[in-house]
Amino acid sequence: MQRKILLDEKDIPRSWYNIAADMPHLPAPPLHPATLKPVGPDDLSPIFPMSLIEQEMSAERWIAIPEEVLEIYSLWRPTPLFRAYSLEKALGTPARIYYKYEGVSPAGSHKPNTAVPQAYYNRKAGVKRLATETGAGQWGSALAFAGRLMGLDVTVYMVKVSYEQKPYRKMAMQTWGAGIHPSPSARTEAGKKVLAADPESPGSLGIAISEAVEDAATHPDTNYALGSVLNHVLLHQSVIGLEAKKQMEIAGDYPDVILAACGGGSNLGGIAFPFLQDRIKGRDLRVVAVEPTSCPTLTRGEFRYDFGDTAGLTPYLMMYTLGHDFVPPGIHAGGLRYHADSPLVCQLYHDGLIEAKACGQTSVFEAGLLFARTEGIIPAPESAHAIRGAIDEALAAREEKKETVILFNLSGHGNFDMAAYDVYLSGKLVDYEYPSELIREALSKLPRIGG
Amino acid sequence: MQRKILLDEKDIPRSWYNIAADMPHLPAPPLHPATLKPVGPDDLSPIFPMSLIEQEMSAERWIAIPEEVLEIYSLWRPTPLFRAYSLEKALGTPARIYYKYEGVSPAGSHKPNTAVPQAYYNRKAGVKRLATETGAGQWGSALAFAGRLMGLDVTVYMVKVSYEQKPYRKMAMQTWGAGIHPSPSARTEAGKKVLAADPESPGSLGIAISEAVEDAATHPDTNYALGSVLNHVLLHQSVIGLEAKKQMEIAGDYPDVILAACGGGSNLGGIAFPFLQDRIKGRDLRVVAVEPTSCPTLTRGEFRYDFGDTAGLTPYLMMYTLGHDFVPPGIHAGGLRYHADSPLVCQLYHDGLIEAKACGQTSVFEAGLLFARTEGIIPAPESAHAIRGAIDEALAAREEKKETVILFNLSGHGNFDMAAYDVYLSGKLVDYEYPSELIREALSKLPRIGG
Repeated sequence: MQRKILLDEKDIPRSWYNIAADMPHLPAPPLHPATLKPVGPDDLSPIFPMSLIEQEMSAERWIAIPEEVLEIYSLWRPTPLFRAYSLEKALGTPARIYYKYEGVSPAGSHKPNTAVPQAYYNRKAGVKRLATETGAGQWGSALAFAGRLMGLDVTVYMVKVSYEQKPYRKMAMQTWGAGIHPSPSARTEAGKKVLAADPESPGSLGIAISEAVEDAATHPDTNYALGSVLNHVLLHQSVIGLEAKKQMEIAGDYPDVILAACGGGSNLGGIAFPFLQDRIKGRDLRVVAVEPTSCPTLTRGEFRYDFGDTAGLTPYLMMYTLGHDFVPPGIHAGGLRYHADSPLVCQLYHDGLIEAKACGQTSVFEAGLLFARTEGIIPAPESAHAIRGAIDEALAAREEKKETVILFNLSGHGNFDMAAYDVYLSGKLVDYEYPSELIREALSKLPRIGG
Repeated sequence: MQRKILLDEKDIPRSWYNIAADMPHLPAPPLHPATLKPVGPDDLSPIFPMSLIEQEMSAERWIAIPEEVLEIYSLWRPTPLFRAYSLEKALGTPARIYYKYEGVSPAGSHKPNTAVPQAYYNRKAGVKRLATETGAGQWGSALAFAGRLMGLDVTVYMVKVSYEQKPYRKMAMQTWGAGIHPSPSARTEAGKKVLAADPESPGSLGIAISEAVEDAATHPDTNYALGSVLNHVLLHQSVIGLEAKKQMEIAGDYPDVILAACGGGSNLGGIAFPFLQDRIKGRDLRVVAVEPTSCPTLTRGEFRYDFGDTAGLTPYLMMYTLGHDFVPPGIHAGGLRYHADSPLVCQLYHDGLIEAKACGQTSVFEAGLLFARTEGIIPAPESAHAIRGAIDEALAAREEKKETVILFNLSGHGNFDMAAYDVYLSGKLVDYEYPSELIREALSKLPRIGG
């Protein structure tokens, strides 16, 4: 009874997989907000290095991973794939459940898979500092870690309410040497404007993005880095699925269904895209994005052009969206509180290659707790969405007496999120279903662009 | 440049190594506090299962690891061995530095290596519940995790000041389903007595041990479990060193010096004893225990019989001790605040097979920070003592232009200890050298037993 399938260091993928090469329909191009014309590399060069812009626009199927990135990857990659025997037993299911565990990275999640190459390409381009935003802190700590190892300074604008509620994440970023500023801050025009209107503003991811982008755009030695949504981010995350494919082969199984939590889409894309390549070629496979009912982007949003941030500084992106000024309630899976999703994930969802389901947070924590008490690992609240989805599939398999093969991505551990479990265990966690009229209202305010 | 040396799941050791079989002098036997005669199995059977008592007293060199324990081990074992290239570069040392990383376990430290077999043997003996104490929480969370996976209830008496200052550890234990009680509690006579004298008592490890032992002794279905000090605990931890030996062989190196933090001695014994077997046979090798200046057991304690706990409920053990009512200051490496050390470690130190050095906590956090910023992993404050020791060896090697091979045990990550780093980064950490007159005074109060 082998619980863990390990690969050797030499099995770390040498190339990232770019699903753009295989998609039946490519996403509609990002549009410049002023001209409504597709953006070109020059539009992005003030805040991104050309090598990442090329990856963002690339149609190449395989893109080589630089040696120096592989070397840092080897601190935690290949990550283990587990067969969840104890969870299966607790559920009494004939399903075989596997999970890929990304929490073994020093920052505790899948985010370093892209933070490291982003830091690498920026340093190669002569950039001295990266500015970014963070909500719950998973991305900010990954970039703080990666920047330090690559010799870059990192400035993180952290949503003020999280800065105050998640001190351990903040301290971890500081331990890696990053500068952390509660957002809104007085360091940027965007921040000052918000503070002038409301000195007590708790901040939002949208405001923090505006601050980080402004910081990057106004300092020649500084670039901006994003932890999800963009094509190059999902490209870098493909190492998860590429390893998982080898590991499933060793296990002698192939998934009937793959599940991942979906906030911006990077951990879903990471595990699923290398398998979706087979699906596109005709193989039977379901891929399910699991999102919170409080931020139901795919399940209840609209497929249209919208901004990637709240302040409207980014290009228009073709996405399922709840409206860029959508402010989701303060659920405990802060990493899933994003008004839209990666254009790649959205296009694949639109084309029926990805399914989606929404779960309330009490059912998610119930799943997370069962997982901790059977498999031993305390999952991040974000990752617990994938567990919820996997448990539902396993229970359906029990009903149907089917040996369904289930694979999910356990994108991170919950060591920094224990306060959320405390709220759940003390019976104080409440569910939140975002009201339809508010979604309709937010969407009605968007300009109608293109189709 | 291979940073990480992995083993396969089949390389998990099948037997624990018992150094008692190879020691030039065995520790003097534990004595019954009333009769001052060596304790027998029956003296221990009210709180330990016979299989663990047999291991405690065994002189067998190899003791087979049960299948069910191996299966749980395989959730995180074999653990990786790393070559610390980035740290070496930062230090400009010709030394080759390796570290074994035990923080990949679900509880984040080496403690589950013994928590799992202890839970296993107790369950096999029909025990329904385990009672234990915890200070900083590393041991309590390991036993909560192991108990849950083995189907045992776990009750943890957590030193009240830690219960309040380390909420994340408490919440992790609760997530694994353990019952946690701030100690002193009203659940035991020992606790009530302390509360009657001082309702505001912050508690101490000694009081918590008394409560856990009383709980076990007064409930027939309940046993007691200890996370360090005892022979069977160090036996179980030998998996660390057994794996590390294989990994060093793969690396083509053999350590000139092995370092580990030393509180009760279990992570030191774990990594060092399988190598010490070679040393005893004549191979050149130094083993260094690194302890805090605020609790300098080996470097400044006395080798004599003393109680293992503050209240005097345990047998007399032959140890280096600062006196069983020694109360170390509240340093941030709570896991090292123990007045004595494992009798095995003490005997080997007495016989010159182990060296010891004491470090102040500011120099320890300086080392931990440098490690986080080069190797990427944020170490537990306890483990950072080993890093400090390793850095000092590496700097000496630079001075002497020697390619010293250094191996240390990174016994756990610091995810739950970020507040300590915050104190250090904000410049508020102070060093503490325990005053000699207080040590002399504490020792003078001990009864003189035997040699």
